Amino acid sequence: MGWMTWERYTCTTDCSGEGAKRCINEQLLKDMADRLVEDGFRDAGYAQISIDDCWPAKERDASGRQTPDPNRFPSGMASIGDYLHEKQLKFGIYSDIGSSTCAGYTGLKGNFDLDAQTFASWGVDYIKVDGCNENTADMFNDYPAFGKALNSTGRPIVYSCSWPAYMAHRCEGSDKCMASLVEHCNLWRNFDDVADGWASVSSIINFWKRNSSSDEMVQAGGPGHWNDPDMLMVGNFGLSESEEQTQFALWAIFAAPLFLSTDLRTISESSKAILLNKEIIAVNQDQLGKQGYCFSGCSSDLRVWIRELENGDAAIVMQNAGNFGDGSNITFHPSLVKWLPKNGNFNVRDMYAQKDLGTITGPLTFYVHVSSVRMFRLSASPSEGNLAVVV
Amino acid sequence: MGWMTWERYTCTTDCSGEGAKRCINEQLLKDMADRLVEDGFRDAGYAQISIDDCWPAKERDASGRQTPDPNRFPSGMASIGDYLHEKQLKFGIYSDIGSSTCAGYTGLKGNFDLDAQTFASWGVDYIKVDGCNENTADMFNDYPAFGKALNSTGRPIVYSCSWPAYMAHRCEGSDKCMASLVEHCNLWRNFDDVADGWASVSSIINFWKRNSSSDEMVQAGGPGHWNDPDMLMVGNFGLSESEEQTQFALWAIFAAPLFLSTDLRTISESSKAILLNKEIIAVNQDQLGKQGYCFSGCSSDLRVWIRELENGDAAIVMQNAGNFGDGSNITFHPSLVKWLPKNGNFNVRDMYAQKDLGTITGPLTFYVHVSSVRMFRLSASPSEGNLAVVV
Repeated sequence: MGWMTWERYTCTTDCSGEGAKRCINEQLLKDMADRLVEDGFRDAGYAQISIDDCWPAKERDASGRQTPDPNRFPSGMASIGDYLHEKQLKFGIYSDIGSSTCAGYTGLKGNFDLDAQTFASWGVDYIKVDGCNENTADMFNDYPAFGKALNSTGRPIVYSCSWPAYMAHRCEGSDKCMASLVEHCNLWRNFDDVADGWASVSSIINFWKRNSSSDEMVQAGGPGHWNDPDMLMVGNFGLSESEEQTQFALWAIFAAPLFLSTDLRTISESSKAILLNKEIIAVNQDQLGKQGYCFSGCSSDLRVWIRELENGDAAIVMQNAGNFGDGSNITFHPSLVKWLPKNGNFNVRDMYAQKDLGTITGPLTFYVHVSSVRMFRLSASPSEGNLAVVV
Repeated sequence: MGWMTWERYTCTTDCSGEGAKRCINEQLLKDMADRLVEDGFRDAGYAQISIDDCWPAKERDASGRQTPDPNRFPSGMASIGDYLHEKQLKFGIYSDIGSSTCAGYTGLKGNFDLDAQTFASWGVDYIKVDGCNENTADMFNDYPAFGKALNSTGRPIVYSCSWPAYMAHRCEGSDKCMASLVEHCNLWRNFDDVADGWASVSSIINFWKRNSSSDEMVQAGGPGHWNDPDMLMVGNFGLSESEEQTQFALWAIFAAPLFLSTDLRTISESSKAILLNKEIIAVNQDQLGKQGYCFSGCSSDLRVWIRELENGDAAIVMQNAGNFGDGSNITFHPSLVKWLPKNGNFNVRDMYAQKDLGTITGPLTFYVHVSSVRMFRLSASPSEGNLAVVV
């Protein structure tokens, strides 16, 4: 969990005039670090600043080491690591497994050990390694090799891979591809880059719309090895409030890494309230580490998503993916979930309203507006149900 | 300008339980009429309630007249007309030029005179006539014929046609088609029904992205005969605040009819502020009645739209249609607009900020966030420019 430069600030390198507030430089990272700490994001779990593409100088230094752009990072990367660590934040960086990054900056190819050591010396805690300018056939060797180089540094560094996103089949239907990710990477980008609009976010949701807990991609997710549907767009320009709630609720079901990529200096109160919802963050970070999946209505607009949580709890998201009219009822049948106790009683907690709704035994029906979700946590209860149907 | 049932309440006919708040019945119309009056919408110009499909009984009455569903409209339609007129609101109704409406209710075919007289007797001020269940070849005769039937009633009734939306070519490239609309209808739906999301709204914007004031569709719009891009989605679930601002600004450029289709009982303050922006409404309702068009950047994401207004003023919308990153500068060159005075000085009014920004002579540059607009009114000024470039 943390903040990442890419979607909002992309490869903005012009720091003149008003550009100073939105270019990729050390001040941007420090500004966002300050906001994470002072506005409660770090304490809610967003405890990392990740820089993405466009930080390096165009050339390696005289000793062949990676070095940042001297105009935009005059203090050097180790200094940024210190700044973040003093604030109890982790330091995330970016590179590319190929000869150069997607934006044309220095890549790792041919320098795995040296670059891993350089990043470790800067105090890097996390690295996203992109897959531009590399043959996909080489990725199966090169990504594991760079992982070994990271391990050899002796510094624990979380390793984010990008290779499924570059495969035509995206690792789908390939046990070997998914097994290799689980073995060599801590997380990996399965699908397209997210953009700031519902068309993009919903295309990712549709890719994640697995129908069972035994699906190979659902199975691959777990402690230390996660599927990554990319950044949260909450706080930007292209999602309505209910679409923001939808993304946040489903990223919790997906057990997804939560990376903000927004301007924390100007974010609205309503977006902030979504991102700081501690109960939904707790679902996202649940210790059991099981990824959720689409449970019913998955080929329609009226869907129920579910995730198994610790203590026998379950997170439920009712999603109305329609875009016409006011809304519809959606029903969830606990008795159809194999891993829930048969004929059990459940307390129902409304996670956006942050209210206890009562106890159910039978099906749960709620009215859900179009483009919206309702999210519930079910917990086993000794008492009998009194909430058979709620609209 | 007014409120219309269709997009938000569609054909909801189940009024039981919670459905009572959202079904098509007389209470819904009265609730919305009350909100228009009490919350300042009527006084801002939204002075009509329009019922769309699904109001009729399944059969005509014993005398062959149209009659409303008796359960949902027990007081009858004339009574609704009275209720609206007492509140200085107009009464809009819906039917279909074919044998039945899109949802399968009674249509006009074969009863043009009788139905026109019936609607007039109810105090109807406006009618939208849909085009389901009719051969498109018959539309060119039947729409004008029903228009004559309306005129024969002696009651002034605004006539909204739907036939271009049913043509494969949508009247594009057909002078005869567009001329017939201008002659026989007061407004007409050119394109697809709007839905509650950016994909739909942006597809309509792209259809309206005419590149010149001489385009045949731009030319067809004018006092008494308007192109209709369909309802505003402001206040619903699928548009972000900046997307709502975009739709509202461009509907003003389009000289479009402004129909709300939202729940005025629960609409947010931010959506309400957009809809009640009097300066933008004044652009929409400008007395000159000229439709605007896309002026520059029209094949890119960074567009300038323009509309000629009375007193030599101009409305300018800078639209960033991109969905990635933070934003971009957009520049408008007044000197390239044929109908603006050469080397003139213009006062610049920011219409969403409702602030005077100063005077320009040369180009105007503003930074516009993705999925967002900035909207300005330019007025001729005796003083020289002091605002050459604003970011």
